[in-house]
Amino acid sequence: MRLPLKIAVAGLGTVGAGTLQLLERQAELLAQRAGRRIVVAAVSARERRRDRGIDLSAVRWYEDAAAMAADPEIDVVVELIGGSEGIARLVVETALEHRKHVVTANKALMAHHGTRLATQAEENHVVLSFESSVAGGIPIVKGLREGLAGNRLQRLYGILNGTSNYILTTMRETAHEFAEVLAEAQRLGYAEADPSFDIDGIDAAHKLAILASVGFGRPVDLDGVYAEGIRHVSRVDVDFAEELGYRIKLLGIARLTEEGLEQRVHPCMVPRVTPIAAVEGVYNAVVAEGDFVGRMVMEGRGAGALPTASAVAADLVDIAAGRDVPPFGVPTSNLRTIPGVPIDRHQGAYYIRLMVVDQPGVIADVAAALRDERVSMEAMIQRGRAPGEAVPVVMTTHVTLEAAMRRALHRIAALDTVLEPPRMIRIEDF
Amino acid sequence: MRLPLKIAVAGLGTVGAGTLQLLERQAELLAQRAGRRIVVAAVSARERRRDRGIDLSAVRWYEDAAAMAADPEIDVVVELIGGSEGIARLVVETALEHRKHVVTANKALMAHHGTRLATQAEENHVVLSFESSVAGGIPIVKGLREGLAGNRLQRLYGILNGTSNYILTTMRETAHEFAEVLAEAQRLGYAEADPSFDIDGIDAAHKLAILASVGFGRPVDLDGVYAEGIRHVSRVDVDFAEELGYRIKLLGIARLTEEGLEQRVHPCMVPRVTPIAAVEGVYNAVVAEGDFVGRMVMEGRGAGALPTASAVAADLVDIAAGRDVPPFGVPTSNLRTIPGVPIDRHQGAYYIRLMVVDQPGVIADVAAALRDERVSMEAMIQRGRAPGEAVPVVMTTHVTLEAAMRRALHRIAALDTVLEPPRMIRIEDF
Repeated sequence: MRLPLKIAVAGLGTVGAGTLQLLERQAELLAQRAGRRIVVAAVSARERRRDRGIDLSAVRWYEDAAAMAADPEIDVVVELIGGSEGIARLVVETALEHRKHVVTANKALMAHHGTRLATQAEENHVVLSFESSVAGGIPIVKGLREGLAGNRLQRLYGILNGTSNYILTTMRETAHEFAEVLAEAQRLGYAEADPSFDIDGIDAAHKLAILASVGFGRPVDLDGVYAEGIRHVSRVDVDFAEELGYRIKLLGIARLTEEGLEQRVHPCMVPRVTPIAAVEGVYNAVVAEGDFVGRMVMEGRGAGALPTASAVAADLVDIAAGRDVPPFGVPTSNLRTIPGVPIDRHQGAYYIRLMVVDQPGVIADVAAALRDERVSMEAMIQRGRAPGEAVPVVMTTHVTLEAAMRRALHRIAALDTVLEPPRMIRIEDF
Repeated sequence: MRLPLKIAVAGLGTVGAGTLQLLERQAELLAQRAGRRIVVAAVSARERRRDRGIDLSAVRWYEDAAAMAADPEIDVVVELIGGSEGIARLVVETALEHRKHVVTANKALMAHHGTRLATQAEENHVVLSFESSVAGGIPIVKGLREGLAGNRLQRLYGILNGTSNYILTTMRETAHEFAEVLAEAQRLGYAEADPSFDIDGIDAAHKLAILASVGFGRPVDLDGVYAEGIRHVSRVDVDFAEELGYRIKLLGIARLTEEGLEQRVHPCMVPRVTPIAAVEGVYNAVVAEGDFVGRMVMEGRGAGALPTASAVAADLVDIAAGRDVPPFGVPTSNLRTIPGVPIDRHQGAYYIRLMVVDQPGVIADVAAALRDERVSMEAMIQRGRAPGEAVPVVMTTHVTLEAAMRRALHRIAALDTVLEPPRMIRIEDF
């Protein structure tokens, strides 16, 4: 057996502690699978004294994680600090510069600087691995990059944010409103005190940008990702979705069209019979559609200390065994220039919900606005009568251009009989 | 870029033709991903003249596949002939002996001789890859062996035979009997003229034996797999399953218990809400439960020329790029001795269906037989009355030992009022 692989861990939050726990508990197994031992030689974290349930007395402690990343004894730096800038970025750049392999769980860093870091890793002939940055324990980066190496993808989509999926699932199951469910999720620790990152689609956008690069062999393009969260999804919409045979999911979607690559994160109505509709609660799932493999789905726990540690360990075993893959599947100089398609150019079907005054002629005005923008209605539901009062009217459209849909909604919003801003949810027919 | 990887393909049936098509169509992509070109240098098949839609004029043709496997110019032999013995086995053994890497889609060969072939590959310092032998295009071998390298598995199960899953799905959807659906599947080409391999669980047993080795790091043990097919599943059972909240699936299950490793293939009642229940038609799915990752699911097309070619290509790219993993995750000398648990020692819940004479006292006799073998009934349904005639009676049991269940069924079968052999389907509570 070869010399041990010496690793340094920067950041000992829940994922860091989970990783140390895994490396200790599975030490023998990992050594057999990697052909050598994986040894934690140094750690760095904000608080030295916190009890993490792991004996760190034999491990070198660094106050300065960047100094640790330059330690000549270290083979691999595991970055579990988080954040796209500051110390996390410095640690990764310092490690690569000093020709150390890097394993990172940092989706913000990879989404913002992935291509540049991959280039830096290539120039220094070291590995940059980030399986744990997307979809927790699901080996999706490996699955796409190596497992589907023989395919060109047409579409890649998934449930990438467990918090949002938990909230949407609970809204449906309990028939509570968004705000109540969010408050409960915060109480249970499933949502942060400041939930914006999760429920506004930012976290999912980071992950989609990374996956789209891996799947389509294109430089990471976070700016090209349209992101819309779930704040505006109401119980009424959840109920109408069921009635129409759909389920509402926050999806990240990357799709190759004739114009280029769409990258978008937003709530979707998906047919209840499609596999992704059945992925509930804190689970994540990713679907890849390749020209040879057809549809391939991977599902599992999208977050949490232990699943994330599982992904970190997989990256470490590959490095210890000497298995090397370019971060985005091909050398960065070979990444393809595929233009991004802005959301205005998106073509799809739409679900629209209006709150209107229940009086004759309202639907005629709405229909005229749609006609004027050449949006073709597919179905309309008006349930319940309350003359002179507010009632919901729901419509679905045939495939139409997003820009036209938006113009139509603008006209509709201006009608006197329409009482609230119209709600729009895109329909995806998988 | 390094020298091309020269491959020889033995067997040009549908999978062979699909593989050649992929290698031609994706040549540039594969070269970028592998860092070198993958070139078909030789082929061998039974019929030279058949039109496979691919130009083979520049490729060396071998009448004798074993001679091709010894050709000093060849780096990798791709075995797509099939069958556990004869020419397929000879080709693989010859290739390994001549220090050539081997990629095989041959599940029978791997299930019967996997450990021995892995040892031979190790001794000759070459790679033996078999992603395409299990679950078609789903990169499940890679997912388990590398993606979950940081985990010890507790259980691994899946829908491993598309034909059986198609038949069960269709029985439920059309309310037709097994024999009718099988005949229709044969007409459509989804089932072979001799369907035994698929519907008697043999094919699934081969795949389970391979996956269990990969997942549990144990020598391949096909003899230790209990296999029971779907011939005895009746429409009545499909209907009762729905009523009880279950769905019937032919599963392969490998489960670690206190006594060792269970390996079994048989029809199962699974809760309708579990992910695998939603996997329909010709799709395959595999679920792995690891101590860190939790539950991880992979789903995709389990057979067919193009998905299988996708898996072959993934193996070839890894070899071309110099990525090497021991066939079963660890060197064969490190495979663990985990005793097999015979089916008689299985403990689980059971669904029992009897056809009984509708007269007083029948249930009392049945209940007494169960009591005498200490089998505890959980629920009983007798639907419809037809005094003096045959009616179905369905029972579910609490967790019980298979041997006791079988003894109880033996007693029940001997009762005068029980008109047909009792039907038993195991319940799995995922």
